[in-house]
Amino acid sequence: MTTTATSLPDMQHSKDTRGIGLWKVGVKEVEIPLRVRQRDGEVQTVHAITSMGVDCSKLEKGVNMSRFMVQLSEWAGGHVFGLDLKDFLHDMREVLEAESAHCDLRFRYFIQKPAPVTGLVAPMAVTASFSGSLLPVEGGEAEYKLIVGVEIPIANCCPCSKAISDYGAHNQRTFIRAQVHVDTAPDAPKVWIEDLVSELEQAASCPVFPVLKRQDEKWVTERQYDNPKFVEDVIRDATLVLRGVKGVLGFSLEVEALESIHAHNAWAAHRENFA
Amino acid sequence: MTTTATSLPDMQHSKDTRGIGLWKVGVKEVEIPLRVRQRDGEVQTVHAITSMGVDCSKLEKGVNMSRFMVQLSEWAGGHVFGLDLKDFLHDMREVLEAESAHCDLRFRYFIQKPAPVTGLVAPMAVTASFSGSLLPVEGGEAEYKLIVGVEIPIANCCPCSKAISDYGAHNQRTFIRAQVHVDTAPDAPKVWIEDLVSELEQAASCPVFPVLKRQDEKWVTERQYDNPKFVEDVIRDATLVLRGVKGVLGFSLEVEALESIHAHNAWAAHRENFA
Amino acid sequence: MTTTATSLPDMQHSKDTRGIGLWKVGVKEVEIPLRVRQRDGEVQTVHAITSMGVDCSKLEKGVNMSRFMVQLSEWAGGHVFGLDLKDFLHDMREVLEAESAHCDLRFRYFIQKPAPVTGLVAPMAVTASFSGSLLPVEGGEAEYKLIVGVEIPIANCCPCSKAISDYGAHNQRTFIRAQVHVDTAPDAPKVWIEDLVSELEQAASCPVFPVLKRQDEKWVTERQYDNPKFVEDVIRDATLVLRGVKGVLGFSLEVEALESIHAHNAWAAHRENFA
Amino acid sequence: MTTTATSLPDMQHSKDTRGIGLWKVGVKEVEIPLRVRQRDGEVQTVHAITSMGVDCSKLEKGVNMSRFMVQLSEWAGGHVFGLDLKDFLHDMREVLEAESAHCDLRFRYFIQKPAPVTGLVAPMAVTASFSGSLLPVEGGEAEYKLIVGVEIPIANCCPCSKAISDYGAHNQRTFIRAQVHVDTAPDAPKVWIEDLVSELEQAASCPVFPVLKRQDEKWVTERQYDNPKFVEDVIRDATLVLRGVKGVLGFSLEVEALESIHAHNAWAAHRENFA
Repeated sequence: MTTTATSLPDMQHSKDTRGIGLWKVGVKEVEIPLRVRQRDGEVQTVHAITSMGVDCSKLEKGVNMSRFMVQLSEWAGGHVFGLDLKDFLHDMREVLEAESAHCDLRFRYFIQKPAPVTGLVAPMAVTASFSGSLLPVEGGEAEYKLIVGVEIPIANCCPCSKAISDYGAHNQRTFIRAQVHVDTAPDAPKVWIEDLVSELEQAASCPVFPVLKRQDEKWVTERQYDNPKFVEDVIRDATLVLRGVKGVLGFSLEVEALESIHAHNAWAAHRENFA
Repeated sequence: MTTTATSLPDMQHSKDTRGIGLWKVGVKEVEIPLRVRQRDGEVQTVHAITSMGVDCSKLEKGVNMSRFMVQLSEWAGGHVFGLDLKDFLHDMREVLEAESAHCDLRFRYFIQKPAPVTGLVAPMAVTASFSGSLLPVEGGEAEYKLIVGVEIPIANCCPCSKAISDYGAHNQRTFIRAQVHVDTAPDAPKVWIEDLVSELEQAASCPVFPVLKRQDEKWVTERQYDNPKFVEDVIRDATLVLRGVKGVLGFSLEVEALESIHAHNAWAAHRENFA
Repeated sequence: MTTTATSLPDMQHSKDTRGIGLWKVGVKEVEIPLRVRQRDGEVQTVHAITSMGVDCSKLEKGVNMSRFMVQLSEWAGGHVFGLDLKDFLHDMREVLEAESAHCDLRFRYFIQKPAPVTGLVAPMAVTASFSGSLLPVEGGEAEYKLIVGVEIPIANCCPCSKAISDYGAHNQRTFIRAQVHVDTAPDAPKVWIEDLVSELEQAASCPVFPVLKRQDEKWVTERQYDNPKFVEDVIRDATLVLRGVKGVLGFSLEVEALESIHAHNAWAAHRENFA
Repeated sequence: MTTTATSLPDMQHSKDTRGIGLWKVGVKEVEIPLRVRQRDGEVQTVHAITSMGVDCSKLEKGVNMSRFMVQLSEWAGGHVFGLDLKDFLHDMREVLEAESAHCDLRFRYFIQKPAPVTGLVAPMAVTASFSGSLLPVEGGEAEYKLIVGVEIPIANCCPCSKAISDYGAHNQRTFIRAQVHVDTAPDAPKVWIEDLVSELEQAASCPVFPVLKRQDEKWVTERQYDNPKFVEDVIRDATLVLRGVKGVLGFSLEVEALESIHAHNAWAAHRENFA
């Protein structure tokens, strides 16, 4: 005779007596292929690392974790992901019989990038994330909040090194990390990963590229040298950039430079309208 | 003739016109040997990975990053670190001519741990951190805030698996991560890494150990099985534990179980009086 | 006037006088979406992290690294990857004007995995790799060699813990890593990632799964307990398994168990006919 | 009544019938504070991540893993580590009743490093490792083999970028990794971590430093620019360096540059008299 679920004890739904309602309970480091909508309308399949969680009432011992996996697996098959995680979160809340729902989808995302002179195109990966939450509001509809994250590699060339040296200037691979609180009102402008990347690259001494022939490398070298920036300059310029992106309500920024003169990193952090 | 610093331009101190004062500017991923005070009064030399940062006024182009390294190197040589980062932060603020100062010192910290039956002792590492900040207060003394972090490995045994199975129960290596806001008033009780570790281990199905002979392994196996806990149980019991530790003003907790039946993790997060 | 490549110096092709021919020169940590042939004939797009290298003659200062990126990018667009890296390596050798060529393609690969009782299916990721090389043979055709790698999560239950305890037994998430030298003769049997995974899982106390309902969890728990294995047992059974896979010429194996009673890992390594 | 070890079954020493003798069985990712002898005679306490393994006879089911931990813990307390791992390995062989023994001790190692102009000194970490093995020799004494590893951060400045550009040149943080097979004959010259680091730094465009004041930064910037090197140049110069170090029997080298114009790395690998 096959064992059935109904004949097995359901520990998660037993009563808890400690009186502690929990903020988030769920699954983490779940890997899954997700389809993500590109700005150009196409769909990109990404390898997402996800976490999903819901609140746990003080009355319940636990949540039924297999339901997250079933839901995620179904959505991965049937939906294209983007800024519209609201339905996904509502579904999670319902499936888990919870009041609040949280998810975090992180993935490497490919952008087709042309070399600056030859125009040779190849894919380059950036890290992107969608972090959504749905929180109960007393007597009203649940509040949906979405943070879009990107981490992009750039180059910065040191203004001090250039100013004090008779020739040359140290430069290095540097990362800009942005967490952007986006407006999710139905009529708000969409904030695309592609736009965040191309806008934030403006804050660099020079972007980096997947393919560079010699003409390109000359352009990049001179561009870096003509455009020296401290991490402080990069983060200020990134701040100006994000202030100008429509649909952005607030942001947190970090710039970290893998200094080519040190084994440690130069670093700056800044935030505006971001809790 | 030797070049002197005074003959070289000082780009960092040139004027900035973007009008953006920055939250934190400094160095990151700096590795340094630090001496840390143990609860027993002895000193442990740890391999710390540190970040240090100060605010950057909207009038200045940047901060002088070499000063962080000189200060850190001097302190590493001459001081024993602990909860008293206030002087370190005051010094940083002065050296960098800044208003606020932040530091984060992370390290693996060894605790001598006896096996439960044989009492065989060996060192086991936990991750610990001291994150301090000094923030200006209008018309008053700067406000000092300290967060002590620990990440400890434990075991949890699944109550559902035990309840539904005729024999056995899955268990796994699990991590409890705590960020603890500690009271730094002069007369407040000290919160030691050792205490946080031993208290939080009470929330496990069973602690883990560096050396176990067979008698110990029997004890640990039966202890796990006798004491099954979901991540929800572990985090609730950890919450009760931290509520009872004197000198703790608030905390953030995370429990993550490397499930032995899945390739992903079970996870819970909770916080109390923690911004 | 646009700068042209021909007007720019070509440093890489200048003469080198140190008399040292190099083993491998190329690019590393290149991320690219690759299409990989599944055993069922379908194509899976993976996020590959690749390295490519060729020998560098003692007469040449360097190799033209942009050519790797152009080649990889073209192949990523136009080919489906699998065990047939021979053409890719021949092309690399030609494009780079080299004698030998090496590539390493690592990626997370999804396998649809049904739960053992309910049959609920969801994707689970394993790490896979194709490492190919083409080496010159005096007076003959170049020799093609291919290593297929997999890393799979499993569970093992400790036989000692079971034997010495009145009840329960510690178990944990464990990894089997295999590097398999495969026969690439035209008529040799194909060795599929899917086969390596399903065969190696036979060496576990029990496989792990992406989705488990309670009936499944009962099955997995009891299966682990009925089938206790040390890492020594897992690696011996994996050895027996790989000896029996057609098309396997030799292999290297590693088993690492994230012990639920320790913070360190139990470990075994073995190799047969593997240089 | 206390359980005693003798009353508990000893599964590891039961007979195995699969007829497979194993290469290495043991523990991995064991963290322990070790004392390491510096070239200057002083002792440095490092945070080591170690693996230890012995062969497992085809007649035995397994090895007694707790013995590794007891031995390591005792040695950590009572010995200073260095190139003389022979006694440690002999002891391991005896304690585990095995024929061969292997250990791998990896750690971050601090070197006091003065700035090139101001002479300001601060510690900088490199990765170092001692990998020893003791293998049985038919009818003779066991053969002891030792590999010393270092990974050091340096800077390289691109010769192509410099040659083709009107001004500037891209440079970046780069790593040299060396595995060095050292002569362990009693009268052989000692090979010190400090010597490998300072010798290999000669192969860089310029070393990197923990503290640099402006005069130093000018020196480093101009030094990099005056001394451009491809990864091919760095690895060839490192080869010449290691050929000249007394006590080195063979080596494997890798150079990896975190290109400041790309998101991927330039890379070279070479080996001489190294199996």
